[in-house]
Amino acid sequence: MNRSEKLVHDMLAGHRLSLARIISKVENRDSDLAAMMHLLYPHSGHAQVWGITGPPGAGKSTLVDRLAANLRAEGKRVAIVAVDPSSPFTGGAILGDRIRMQQHSGDEGVFIRSLGTRGKHGGLSHATKEVVLVLDAAGFDVVLVETAGVGQTELEILKLAQTVIVVLVPESGDSIQAMKAGLMEIADVFAVNKSDRPEADKMVRELINMVGLNDHDEHTWMIPVLKTEAVRNIGVTELVAAIAGHQAHLTVTDKRKLKTAQFLKNEVLDILTERLNQTLMAAFETKSGQELLQQLVLRETDPYQAADLISGM
Amino acid sequence: MNRSEKLVHDMLAGHRLSLARIISKVENRDSDLAAMMHLLYPHSGHAQVWGITGPPGAGKSTLVDRLAANLRAEGKRVAIVAVDPSSPFTGGAILGDRIRMQQHSGDEGVFIRSLGTRGKHGGLSHATKEVVLVLDAAGFDVVLVETAGVGQTELEILKLAQTVIVVLVPESGDSIQAMKAGLMEIADVFAVNKSDRPEADKMVRELINMVGLNDHDEHTWMIPVLKTEAVRNIGVTELVAAIAGHQAHLTVTDKRKLKTAQFLKNEVLDILTERLNQTLMAAFETKSGQELLQQLVLRETDPYQAADLISGM
Repeated sequence: MNRSEKLVHDMLAGHRLSLARIISKVENRDSDLAAMMHLLYPHSGHAQVWGITGPPGAGKSTLVDRLAANLRAEGKRVAIVAVDPSSPFTGGAILGDRIRMQQHSGDEGVFIRSLGTRGKHGGLSHATKEVVLVLDAAGFDVVLVETAGVGQTELEILKLAQTVIVVLVPESGDSIQAMKAGLMEIADVFAVNKSDRPEADKMVRELINMVGLNDHDEHTWMIPVLKTEAVRNIGVTELVAAIAGHQAHLTVTDKRKLKTAQFLKNEVLDILTERLNQTLMAAFETKSGQELLQQLVLRETDPYQAADLISGM
Repeated sequence: MNRSEKLVHDMLAGHRLSLARIISKVENRDSDLAAMMHLLYPHSGHAQVWGITGPPGAGKSTLVDRLAANLRAEGKRVAIVAVDPSSPFTGGAILGDRIRMQQHSGDEGVFIRSLGTRGKHGGLSHATKEVVLVLDAAGFDVVLVETAGVGQTELEILKLAQTVIVVLVPESGDSIQAMKAGLMEIADVFAVNKSDRPEADKMVRELINMVGLNDHDEHTWMIPVLKTEAVRNIGVTELVAAIAGHQAHLTVTDKRKLKTAQFLKNEVLDILTERLNQTLMAAFETKSGQELLQQLVLRETDPYQAADLISGM
């Protein structure tokens, strides 16, 4: 066995350090990646992948924590991936929150990993997809992907989830109208967290109205709206049941197949895009590449012509 | 002349409606795009491109407005591109701010455009790059690109600017340490806006310290830290002077050439990535593509093998 084979073998046997190492290799775009994915991939395809998002301060991390505890009580193995495409203006709040997760330490049935990056071209959503594949192959029953939830990158990442839970808090109420289109597009389940606050019922009503106004027929998933109070562990069992309902809906309607196909198409696209990026940067280092760049700078050729030329090099 | 030629011809002659139409074609990824860019591109390469970013509430839009007025007073033609990769949680605040810009209405020397999108794979930063190229070709002396400033997408977009102005407000002070690495990476000039507030001087000192701690030699740009009060038009002339200083630094040190080359490489990469995306999605629609997808779903082949196969199709 070579090193990659040993690492994958150990990971499949449940060795956590090997799992952590493989995830690091995914993050660092290691040269052994293709070989490792080849060995891993046949073991994947069994995990449920849930995405959790919402505005900052909605209590996502606490809720994720409670979901994990609830799943553990059912005997399920749970992986948590906290993704923070941290801008210089937000810092890595999500990472700090992980300290709360210490209650799971020593439990072999829970694995927690934070992913973050700055500025890599499309890198974070690709890496997250592959980390989910690895955790799936490692035998986790449910992979919870939590995003900081404030931009295009996060929405891209959420596409990898089969079920997306949008966590809101009563104070978000005023801006519901503005968010409407975007929320309906990504949410499979709404959780109104911190639901002990005065405006909670009003917000629930508004969300239910919003869901009801959407066009629907017997194949449409009617997005459930649940009240939770994660810090007191209220409503979490009901939330897990609603998610299970959505997972069943995916299977019954064949939507699961479509989602799986889309996930795999995107993964192949990401691999080819990464290769294209490397090939192109190398091409620009060659003599003819440097000449082409010079022609671009001098406006003797345009970027579309250059794209034609360089793809023929 | 065909339609594209007519449109570009009119745009180059200063026809604003043609300019607006071309920008819409860029946003919609029109099939005439390559032909239009071919005609436009030789006229580009003269504009200064400034990026303006900062946390929500820092007063970016007002400051951009003042910068534009200041440049107009110097007789320069100014284009403003407000980019908002709006998540469902933030809505399009930046678009609303544009109402303040009405003072420029009727001035042919100012052109304002908002760009936004949801979820398109890498689409927004590519479109923004090409919009900047179009405005450059249309003869604007300075293109101001303002981003909502909260994520990976925005940082990607800022790469197209020659000079990046990071706008902060005194209240951001507490989190400066957290932002430090990220800010130093993108900022060419700091503006502490709303500088009438009590904590302003403290923040300026902290930023100056931070800049001073950075490694530097005679080729390093020492990031200036300026106080502004955009609503009362205080400090704006000084800010413009600091930006001019950075632009001169770029020229003297050859960094301008490097930035131009990087911008053009990225544009070629974006074009090829877009084509790859289209080719791949079409390939998955063919009979052999569908079979490959089925093999992926059944775990008979892995995504890296599939990438090899499909790029050979």
